[in-house]
Amino acid sequence: MTSTDCARVSTSEPAELRLGLVADLYELTMAASYHRLGMQGRATFSLFVRKLPAHRSFLVAAGLDGALARLERLGFDDEGAAYLASTGHVRPEEAAVLARTRFTGDVRAVREGRVVFPDEPLVEVDAPIVEAQLAESLILNALHYPTLVATKAARCVAAARGRPLVDFGLRRAPGIDASADVARSCWLAGFASTSNVDAARRLGIPASGTVAHAFIEAMPDERAAFEAWSRAAVGPLTLLVDTYDTLNGTRAAIELAQRLRGEGRAVAAVRLDSGDLDALSRAVRQRLDEAGLRYVRIFASGGLDEYSVDRLVRAGAPIDGFGVGTRVGMSSDAPVLDMAYKLVEYAGAPCLKLSTSKVTLVGPKQVWRLRDAGGRFIADRIAARDEPAPTSGDWEPLLEPVVSQGRRLERPRLAELRAAHAAEIACLPPELRAIEPDAAGAAAIYPVSLSSVLAERHRAAVRATRRREGLEPRPADGRATVRRS
Amino acid sequence: MTSTDCARVSTSEPAELRLGLVADLYELTMAASYHRLGMQGRATFSLFVRKLPAHRSFLVAAGLDGALARLERLGFDDEGAAYLASTGHVRPEEAAVLARTRFTGDVRAVREGRVVFPDEPLVEVDAPIVEAQLAESLILNALHYPTLVATKAARCVAAARGRPLVDFGLRRAPGIDASADVARSCWLAGFASTSNVDAARRLGIPASGTVAHAFIEAMPDERAAFEAWSRAAVGPLTLLVDTYDTLNGTRAAIELAQRLRGEGRAVAAVRLDSGDLDALSRAVRQRLDEAGLRYVRIFASGGLDEYSVDRLVRAGAPIDGFGVGTRVGMSSDAPVLDMAYKLVEYAGAPCLKLSTSKVTLVGPKQVWRLRDAGGRFIADRIAARDEPAPTSGDWEPLLEPVVSQGRRLERPRLAELRAAHAAEIACLPPELRAIEPDAAGAAAIYPVSLSSVLAERHRAAVRATRRREGLEPRPADGRATVRRS
Repeated sequence: MTSTDCARVSTSEPAELRLGLVADLYELTMAASYHRLGMQGRATFSLFVRKLPAHRSFLVAAGLDGALARLERLGFDDEGAAYLASTGHVRPEEAAVLARTRFTGDVRAVREGRVVFPDEPLVEVDAPIVEAQLAESLILNALHYPTLVATKAARCVAAARGRPLVDFGLRRAPGIDASADVARSCWLAGFASTSNVDAARRLGIPASGTVAHAFIEAMPDERAAFEAWSRAAVGPLTLLVDTYDTLNGTRAAIELAQRLRGEGRAVAAVRLDSGDLDALSRAVRQRLDEAGLRYVRIFASGGLDEYSVDRLVRAGAPIDGFGVGTRVGMSSDAPVLDMAYKLVEYAGAPCLKLSTSKVTLVGPKQVWRLRDAGGRFIADRIAARDEPAPTSGDWEPLLEPVVSQGRRLERPRLAELRAAHAAEIACLPPELRAIEPDAAGAAAIYPVSLSSVLAERHRAAVRATRRREGLEPRPADGRATVRRS
Repeated sequence: MTSTDCARVSTSEPAELRLGLVADLYELTMAASYHRLGMQGRATFSLFVRKLPAHRSFLVAAGLDGALARLERLGFDDEGAAYLASTGHVRPEEAAVLARTRFTGDVRAVREGRVVFPDEPLVEVDAPIVEAQLAESLILNALHYPTLVATKAARCVAAARGRPLVDFGLRRAPGIDASADVARSCWLAGFASTSNVDAARRLGIPASGTVAHAFIEAMPDERAAFEAWSRAAVGPLTLLVDTYDTLNGTRAAIELAQRLRGEGRAVAAVRLDSGDLDALSRAVRQRLDEAGLRYVRIFASGGLDEYSVDRLVRAGAPIDGFGVGTRVGMSSDAPVLDMAYKLVEYAGAPCLKLSTSKVTLVGPKQVWRLRDAGGRFIADRIAARDEPAPTSGDWEPLLEPVVSQGRRLERPRLAELRAAHAAEIACLPPELRAIEPDAAGAAAIYPVSLSSVLAERHRAAVRATRRREGLEPRPADGRATVRRS
């Protein structure tokens, strides 16, 4: 266990706290029914995203560390069992059995920070069906939000093209734990720091901050406020210049910076938080430069996301760093992933649903990624898990064992995951990193295909299922569902 | 303290756990600077939403109970102080002072479940500026998400027009605590139950559930699955009919229902989770009715929100209840509120910022709501707190004391808040409850005005601030910023 990663889980979820009731009621009633029906077979569930939101060309997997910590906490105490029985949906003796259930299965997963695409399993759980079923809501809940945010954050990093980004998400994140997820996902994706002190501490990442309007407003006037801040603040000095009028504030900042320079002290930056950031940053830069303050950087914030950062950077606005928060913390242009956790095999037999727009690919899987000679990603292939590695080319498997017989295997450090993520993003086809969709309004699509073995097994399972259920054969039965390639 | 409301706070945040480091770093550096500068004056901060998202005509206030619980947990322990000092942004002796800071101020707030509008304070904090500043991120974080979700949930309830709604949000909610916030906000807004067992238990609200596709898929075939479910499940029997083909599944459900009826047992409902819910629900209803199963209800789920529920209900689809989850839990059509916590008075002097699009109304406030003879809301007026109540009409003040000298006053029970919310929604002008915007694409706007006293104080403060900061007078200085009336 690394000291950085596990600290936050243990803070928010004490080790003695079991999480087995953090479940949709039907998980518990189904698990009780599997027991009653004597179903002790092993199941495989695949966790994947059915399709990408508009304006997304890839996803960044995140949340696995938290998900696996939760898996270790299935089950609940006697009061929990009594509560469950009191709902009238589970018999008392079955509630007691569920309360004692622990996770004894295996998990294979894609490392956090890796880029994934639709239909590719991020996680596969192999376990007695009761355990795998009880874990559904916990695992989905652990992966959905961090993946959503890491994906958005990676886009912000791409848009900033090397300029540092600071996570400002705490105040409008959906809760305290979520704010730590935001800080972690943003750090994973390459942010430089977070303003969230508790999260920085828990995760062992840098905290940073400037000053807010309240400080300026509480002083007799803006000059007095800058002066007071320069005397009181420790660490790099940033002045917030937009409380009343950005150019006026900049004038006051310049006077102070020149005076402080005389005392051998530097103003590190000014922060712009409102208005036309492109025009204002140019005007502020010009005034700073004319005053001989080329070393004073310009930091911008205020409702920013990858679109506004991209526009500012492409326009050449002289902004040296960005604070982003609210829109990343709610992934505001794409706040939902169609992420599902679906049974794909039970007791050795393939399982699938045929529901409209929700067909599941059968069986345990592996995802293979092909690189060119320069290491650049060319295409992915979703294969059956028991297939041999593809030949002819440099193929890498994405799913690796992370839990064996209920025990977690070695946990990667967050710093490693972050570095690997940066390397991975650099290998993506560049069009996938585009922020704006193309002229036709579409996001770039990465080629993902099914192996012929998996495709044939899937077709066979669809045909067998339709035959078994007395359904007409369909023209669609003859082809697999993944159509990108 | 009620047993229902406080249980969840105490579960996720043990009483001994201080939350003072759950702050943006600048709150702590500013607070340290106020100390150093000897600023012990009292500040008033207003928490409000600057403007409504498109497609919203009102907000439902929520999250106050959690916010006030957090206020009681300002400060941090010695390790926290050491960490803070280690960032280099706060001196060790100041970190120690901040660690010992507790909230001793007063809070006035709008009750949870009440309808509020832009610029209306949901919360006003009056406290020594250090304390009020340290609370900023904690309070905003506590209010933003529950208010967002309660607002979305209230729209779903309006759309369902009396049909029961079940919260299915757990699996894609942004974390475990967030999933409890979703359950609570949905219950406050009038949902019938939640699938989230842990949240139901913490909040003392009904849990409900059906059955998932995995159960069907793990069985030899769908008929066998229904049969097994009917034998194993306790409580009301719901059959999920869309795993392979909805009408085929309905046939199997009908056969089972008829057989069970012979044994004196009822199938309570069938659940549709995919496809064209309007057409399918009609076809399923017809088949059920023809089979003499009028008592079997139809429950629908699958990516629903207020828009799809509204369309289904208006089209007359024979659906008796809805499960909604993902889109409510991320408020997917409007995932962000422009909610802010701004200094409006320090040491008796009005404070404001003039930043573009972010002007703050000065001073402590009260919000007054006018009702007609039938109790229907006519208009709101934002006034200075020290103004007398408006005369001529039935005006009710929205902000009431909830914390006095750091001590919480009586906490309303969640059940009371829920009942009051339902009564309040019934008093809204009906056009505000519309789900779809009008023909011009606009959401209905409720009239909110400023009192002439507040408007004049605000104008005077703007003029004085601009004069003080050496800014040109502006034509806009002559009018107040709230323009709805």
